[in-house]
Amino acid sequence: MTIHLIRLEPVERNRKDGTMKKSLPLSKVYCQLEPGPVVLVTSAGKGKADVMAMSWHMMIDFEPPLVGCVISNRNHTFSLVKASKECVINIPTVELAAQMVGCGNTSGRRVDKFKTFGLTPVPGTLVKAPLILECYANFECKVVDTKLLAKYNVFILEVLKAWIDPSKKNPRTMHHRGKGTFMVAGRTITLPSRMK
Amino acid sequence: MTIHLIRLEPVERNRKDGTMKKSLPLSKVYCQLEPGPVVLVTSAGKGKADVMAMSWHMMIDFEPPLVGCVISNRNHTFSLVKASKECVINIPTVELAAQMVGCGNTSGRRVDKFKTFGLTPVPGTLVKAPLILECYANFECKVVDTKLLAKYNVFILEVLKAWIDPSKKNPRTMHHRGKGTFMVAGRTITLPSRMK
Repeated sequence: MTIHLIRLEPVERNRKDGTMKKSLPLSKVYCQLEPGPVVLVTSAGKGKADVMAMSWHMMIDFEPPLVGCVISNRNHTFSLVKASKECVINIPTVELAAQMVGCGNTSGRRVDKFKTFGLTPVPGTLVKAPLILECYANFECKVVDTKLLAKYNVFILEVLKAWIDPSKKNPRTMHHRGKGTFMVAGRTITLPSRMK
Repeated sequence: MTIHLIRLEPVERNRKDGTMKKSLPLSKVYCQLEPGPVVLVTSAGKGKADVMAMSWHMMIDFEPPLVGCVISNRNHTFSLVKASKECVINIPTVELAAQMVGCGNTSGRRVDKFKTFGLTPVPGTLVKAPLILECYANFECKVVDTKLLAKYNVFILEVLKAWIDPSKKNPRTMHHRGKGTFMVAGRTITLPSRMK
């Protein structure tokens, strides 16, 4: 006789502003990362968590979603991700500009960035790194390949679980143009493209 | 006795609309690619050239600028870049939306995309792949690492020479959100960031 255990998954996660996050099909993760937004990478280790702003990332495959990213080995996040083999990619919109820049300007070795910048850590379902409540999308990731880590600081991540605030159809993401200038996502156009 | 040969480099390249392109310092290439625009990759081989739309790219290092990118091995461009170990990354603005989508919807095996979509090939200075005149930025690249090519179709490129239309301070680049929807670059904001 086989006993079927049904694991009830939390499909909705509250946000502070009252909106709800829902589970996003993994096949749709690329739609959020491909436009190239600044993301906040969260990681954890030894009972502490850290947050880092990151722009050097790209999709590598659709499903399961694979993401390549560069994390400088001078960053605290580098050690945490390397040791735990996990992280969360959180996508902020322009309302979080001050918090995003704050995270980029400080080091997790000296500052609790969650407390300092008023970001709320939420437990993940498949990784120990926390999700950032205030970000409209959160992707729980594990490290699946480190072949380019020593030479280029490149991690290859697989997104295991994705969350999104479905009300954000046209998220005002930030896109780094260098040295403090950021392009804010503008209008959306639809073109007769057959590209996935 | 040493004879010093001075190579005069073409520092300006005409555009059809009368604006001029100038040489861009390699240390500034990341400012154009980090925001995540759709780019057009040009490549050449056996007397023919091809163009491909691409969104899966990221910066890997500042200087010399290293760029990681994914080119599907089903694309004609894949074979050309793999064989020639060269390509050009061209960045279009929204005025080139129809041409960009056309390049994405067709195969260079069957169609001369330059002719079909009215794009003008311009000779590069360090690579055989042509630059696209109509794009506001052009980066001449060589392939420097293929460790992840077999497994993920990831090329690592080094930008050898960069060109830009300096009048484009806030280029209206396109950012793919999947299945024919594109975000067009919006306003630019300046934040007190200490990030490079």
